[in-house]
Amino acid sequence: MVDIVAVGSVALDTIRTPFGYVERTLGGSACYFSAAASILGARVGIVGKVGNDFPKEHLDFLRSKNTDLSGLEISEGDTFVWKGEYGKDWNQAVTKETHLGVFADFHPRLPDAYLDASLVFLGNIHPQLQLEVLDQIRTLEFVACDSMNYWIQTELETLKKVLKRVNCLLINEGEVKLLTGANNIFEGGYEILSMGPDVLVIKRGEYGAVLLTREHTFLSSAYPVLKVVDPTGAGDSFAGGFMGYLSVSNEIDFEALKRAVVAGTIIAGFTVEAFSLDRLKNLSNREFEVRYDKYLEIVCISR
Amino acid sequence: MVDIVAVGSVALDTIRTPFGYVERTLGGSACYFSAAASILGARVGIVGKVGNDFPKEHLDFLRSKNTDLSGLEISEGDTFVWKGEYGKDWNQAVTKETHLGVFADFHPRLPDAYLDASLVFLGNIHPQLQLEVLDQIRTLEFVACDSMNYWIQTELETLKKVLKRVNCLLINEGEVKLLTGANNIFEGGYEILSMGPDVLVIKRGEYGAVLLTREHTFLSSAYPVLKVVDPTGAGDSFAGGFMGYLSVSNEIDFEALKRAVVAGTIIAGFTVEAFSLDRLKNLSNREFEVRYDKYLEIVCISR
Repeated sequence: MVDIVAVGSVALDTIRTPFGYVERTLGGSACYFSAAASILGARVGIVGKVGNDFPKEHLDFLRSKNTDLSGLEISEGDTFVWKGEYGKDWNQAVTKETHLGVFADFHPRLPDAYLDASLVFLGNIHPQLQLEVLDQIRTLEFVACDSMNYWIQTELETLKKVLKRVNCLLINEGEVKLLTGANNIFEGGYEILSMGPDVLVIKRGEYGAVLLTREHTFLSSAYPVLKVVDPTGAGDSFAGGFMGYLSVSNEIDFEALKRAVVAGTIIAGFTVEAFSLDRLKNLSNREFEVRYDKYLEIVCISR
Repeated sequence: MVDIVAVGSVALDTIRTPFGYVERTLGGSACYFSAAASILGARVGIVGKVGNDFPKEHLDFLRSKNTDLSGLEISEGDTFVWKGEYGKDWNQAVTKETHLGVFADFHPRLPDAYLDASLVFLGNIHPQLQLEVLDQIRTLEFVACDSMNYWIQTELETLKKVLKRVNCLLINEGEVKLLTGANNIFEGGYEILSMGPDVLVIKRGEYGAVLLTREHTFLSSAYPVLKVVDPTGAGDSFAGGFMGYLSVSNEIDFEALKRAVVAGTIIAGFTVEAFSLDRLKNLSNREFEVRYDKYLEIVCISR
């Protein structure tokens, strides 16, 4: 049994930042997501596809993070490769190269062990593939999805079908403006809530995140990170911390969603302190808890 | 007696935003500051200079906001005029015209009634003039100053003298980076604290503010404003709410500073909902309190 099904990329990343350079390191939304969720105690079942060049050590690492890989297809060919660079402006990676490899003809197929998972995370893939996942799952307690500029611009109608069927959308503020045409993220946010999701999480990078439902708002500042080494995977780690927190909560009410956003913020703050998934590798739940408490101290005021 | 001495510009603004156009309306850092501080119950003494073209109605308005104008020099000539425009990107005003008028040879002269004020706000003027104010005041319990890119680039040594003599600096995040060369605002923030001030407030516009001392950190999200009509004066209103709160506090400890930052955030949120000082004109302390409580609800988590 898995707690959360996560569909997304499993990739080999080559990254340059002002603090260094790494080659063909573990990357991809599903990997960041599952490693992050595991810190919260959740067992994630990955749905994805890699080539037969994918290093065994990465599979071993993911398994060590309590990840179920029975939904990870390994096929003849190359693994998805991404090469990117960050300059002084951390907010935007400059993509130098993308090779989809075997991911180009990926179609999600969920193993039996995943079909009763109550939580689903649809990573940032073609909205048609996101729909294919929703068609397979039997129990849908809480489905969250990610998307991006590219799909908003090229697959808007399909994306809107997805939005009608998910409980929660996690996107960044630029995407809120692109999706709605609104210049104000709150105005745009309410418009997105009218498209289907009950919960919207707007990611604002180093500034934090906004949690919006029709009735409630929660503003979360990002945890102050003194040295950002590599921002890759921050958004997917956020999603992993968020969903991981919800998977161990008794119920998904607004109070739980708030805490889940903070959990996502904290985990994303850890991720960016090192290259790739390095910081998550030995991160303990205890370290997470310490920072979570510290966080509440630096954002809250006693009445 | 005044509670706070505020030195800064008193101006006539002509502003165009996507929501309209206003001509020769009341503006200037000292005006936004004192109107904002008055909402918190503080009496501000303005130090500034206008021409004899300055409309009497604006003087009456400032007096109605419990402002002492005995430090406002009125001399033969034109009042400081600023013409600016905002496009879709609210973060940066495009200055179309600036006429310093009589403000060009402004030298702050503090009337006797101001000399024992315990709080001082040095608005964004030449750092040499900021020093002249500090030389006149007898009691300096808490001095906060503002500055800007221009002074950092052209008057750095003088600005550093000011920093050695103030308790608190309020600047925006771009200025933190410019002043220190740091790419990370926390890293840059600690460097600024080593230059003199015990308290640093980093303004992040629509994202909120960071309060930093050597021992403590507080992150404040901005109050969610659904419709920003005119962002002019947001920073000075923030400063007015911040200092106004401190002036009515029993002591200035970190807890009071946190609440003062929130007060600044709330007042700035009101200011940008209308052109010029229009929203502050009839804003009651009760409205402020309601939003303050609402704010704590949307940023805090109970343990």
